Amino acid sequence: MGKGRLEAFSDGVIAIIITIMVLEMKVPHGESLDSLLPLVPVFFSYILSFVYVGIYWNNHHHMLHTCRRVTGPILWANLHLLFWLSLFPFTTGWMGENHFASAPSALYGLVLLMAGIAYWLLQQAIISSEGSASLLRKAVGRDWKGKLSPVLYIVAIVASRWSPWIAQAIYTSVALIWLVPDRRIEHVLRGTEA
Amino acid sequence: MGKGRLEAFSDGVIAIIITIMVLEMKVPHGESLDSLLPLVPVFFSYILSFVYVGIYWNNHHHMLHTCRRVTGPILWANLHLLFWLSLFPFTTGWMGENHFASAPSALYGLVLLMAGIAYWLLQQAIISSEGSASLLRKAVGRDWKGKLSPVLYIVAIVASRWSPWIAQAIYTSVALIWLVPDRRIEHVLRGTEA
Amino acid sequence: MGKGRLEAFSDGVIAIIITIMVLEMKVPHGESLDSLLPLVPVFFSYILSFVYVGIYWNNHHHMLHTCRRVTGPILWANLHLLFWLSLFPFTTGWMGENHFASAPSALYGLVLLMAGIAYWLLQQAIISSEGSASLLRKAVGRDWKGKLSPVLYIVAIVASRWSPWIAQAIYTSVALIWLVPDRRIEHVLRGTEA
Amino acid sequence: MGKGRLEAFSDGVIAIIITIMVLEMKVPHGESLDSLLPLVPVFFSYILSFVYVGIYWNNHHHMLHTCRRVTGPILWANLHLLFWLSLFPFTTGWMGENHFASAPSALYGLVLLMAGIAYWLLQQAIISSEGSASLLRKAVGRDWKGKLSPVLYIVAIVASRWSPWIAQAIYTSVALIWLVPDRRIEHVLRGTEA
Repeated sequence: MGKGRLEAFSDGVIAIIITIMVLEMKVPHGESLDSLLPLVPVFFSYILSFVYVGIYWNNHHHMLHTCRRVTGPILWANLHLLFWLSLFPFTTGWMGENHFASAPSALYGLVLLMAGIAYWLLQQAIISSEGSASLLRKAVGRDWKGKLSPVLYIVAIVASRWSPWIAQAIYTSVALIWLVPDRRIEHVLRGTEA
Repeated sequence: MGKGRLEAFSDGVIAIIITIMVLEMKVPHGESLDSLLPLVPVFFSYILSFVYVGIYWNNHHHMLHTCRRVTGPILWANLHLLFWLSLFPFTTGWMGENHFASAPSALYGLVLLMAGIAYWLLQQAIISSEGSASLLRKAVGRDWKGKLSPVLYIVAIVASRWSPWIAQAIYTSVALIWLVPDRRIEHVLRGTEA
Repeated sequence: MGKGRLEAFSDGVIAIIITIMVLEMKVPHGESLDSLLPLVPVFFSYILSFVYVGIYWNNHHHMLHTCRRVTGPILWANLHLLFWLSLFPFTTGWMGENHFASAPSALYGLVLLMAGIAYWLLQQAIISSEGSASLLRKAVGRDWKGKLSPVLYIVAIVASRWSPWIAQAIYTSVALIWLVPDRRIEHVLRGTEA
Repeated sequence: MGKGRLEAFSDGVIAIIITIMVLEMKVPHGESLDSLLPLVPVFFSYILSFVYVGIYWNNHHHMLHTCRRVTGPILWANLHLLFWLSLFPFTTGWMGENHFASAPSALYGLVLLMAGIAYWLLQQAIISSEGSASLLRKAVGRDWKGKLSPVLYIVAIVASRWSPWIAQAIYTSVALIWLVPDRRIEHVLRGTEA
């Protein structure tokens, strides 16, 4: 099975997810700027999710780049990842409409966590299909981002019970960790470890 | 006519179908976890349909892989399949919102049945365009899954009148039959037949 | 400018149009089969539009196959065609929800007419960019379908004022004219003309 | 990283944006032509946005044509552009439903301005990744359209406070400036400058 169609299908699904999220920002009935006020938290949750989906698309692209053939497990691990990503519009809308309340913030983190686990499973499926000489295994390396993120998501889910704002701060920090180019941070970390 | 654009168009339609199904899970107005309770059956019907659409995408890909040229009948048989798949979001939403009641469960099975028939028609269109040396005919073989599934769908549609849960169990079983890799099951069956 | 991206973009837009039309079939609140009754006309209008969009996608593909380079006028004529096609979900939904009443049936025909004109303009843009040796000009030939369709649409629009059912019969007939493979009909017509 | 998948993803997102805008034109409940009247301004705002998205898709295509490799900054500048384009359905719907009132007209202009800035940032990211011999830098030249448009958007945003119709006239004019083929206007301008 060719890699091209898997990429094209994933691109299609991710493009639709990133675009229909905006439909949760319902057009207000009033014509004054005030009528936009209730949408401000929805807008911020949209920005956060847009960045997350963008990061996933970016990393997904790089990961598949190293993959040479698509096996059954890779295909289903990929659909499993797309499943959790497809829930982003729902959790984004619920969190935004309820002004970052406790339960919606926790659910948002849970779906982030599941997507992170699904991404890790896809990574393992590709590595195990490629054997010991896997390019991806070398590229992933110690994968401190991939290991740190789920821990932070769990902290955020627990914290959202008392303070949803701590959860938001953590979600934003994780997004920034992935956004900032790798080498510099890895350099810093190597320095700390030494 | 090239195969590439048929694949790209089908991928696009299937990617949209699998993604807009999630729009049937309307964001609840409350902010408590309780407000998610009515959505639980919608969520389970979404998972079921996500798996079905994933199976169709996967099989569609393999089937077209063996097809060397696209004729008029293949093109229209493909659109006919996409038509029935496009009704999945509707039947999924209706079944989920009504907590797997009788009529929605039966309609869900009817659309599964029609999609199964449409898939079989597309398979026949490709085989007949390729003549006696058709790769697909050999690959399909005895096609016990393709023959068993419609029978099970009909049983489920009839059963949903008395017990929708039997219908759900059948829909889930058919999905699992397709999910589990072929060779082992075929081996088992060959053993039973011997 | 390459042809590939124009095809990919058109495929994407057409795939979305054909799929979001189904969103006009709102999931009913009741769980009985009776609650589906009001949706029957919406379902039939959906089938009609699905077939029309399928025909456009099919013909669009064949037309671009003959096109060797994409000029500015071709690009904008293509976007103009996509604009009118993008109105199909709206006119389909309005016609279906109002049980094929006069005004919605007339508007449905008007958008079909505009899409037909837009298709013809795109055809002319490709022919004029290719000069006298245009492959498309030869392929189009006398183009009796392309000339007959707008006349029939106008008849249907006028007729829908008195009898929307005549309009529906005409819309269905035009779809069938395009569905039936060309050669046989052309053969019949050539016989009549001789 | 290959350019193909960036183009395919952008095409997908832009195709979805241009198509879901039409969903803001809600199907009216009445069956008379009069029931369409409230939709007339929504229709006109849809046409305007359709043309803008078409221009962006067209220019985006030409710009990426000159780009040989995709770097991190290019990828994120591209996602940043898609973010602002994804807000078009929202601002288009709000402006249309409120019959081109002051605040919605200003917000429409603000999103146009941000998209224009995002486009310029993407252009700079490509030029700086290509170095001094950049093909794009030569192609862009003095870029009078790219410099004039933001100024006109700001004028329109300010003017919309007193007369939203002046804002609409400016938005339409900017679209026309981009629609009309370059060479003739540039020739005229060169004449004026001389």
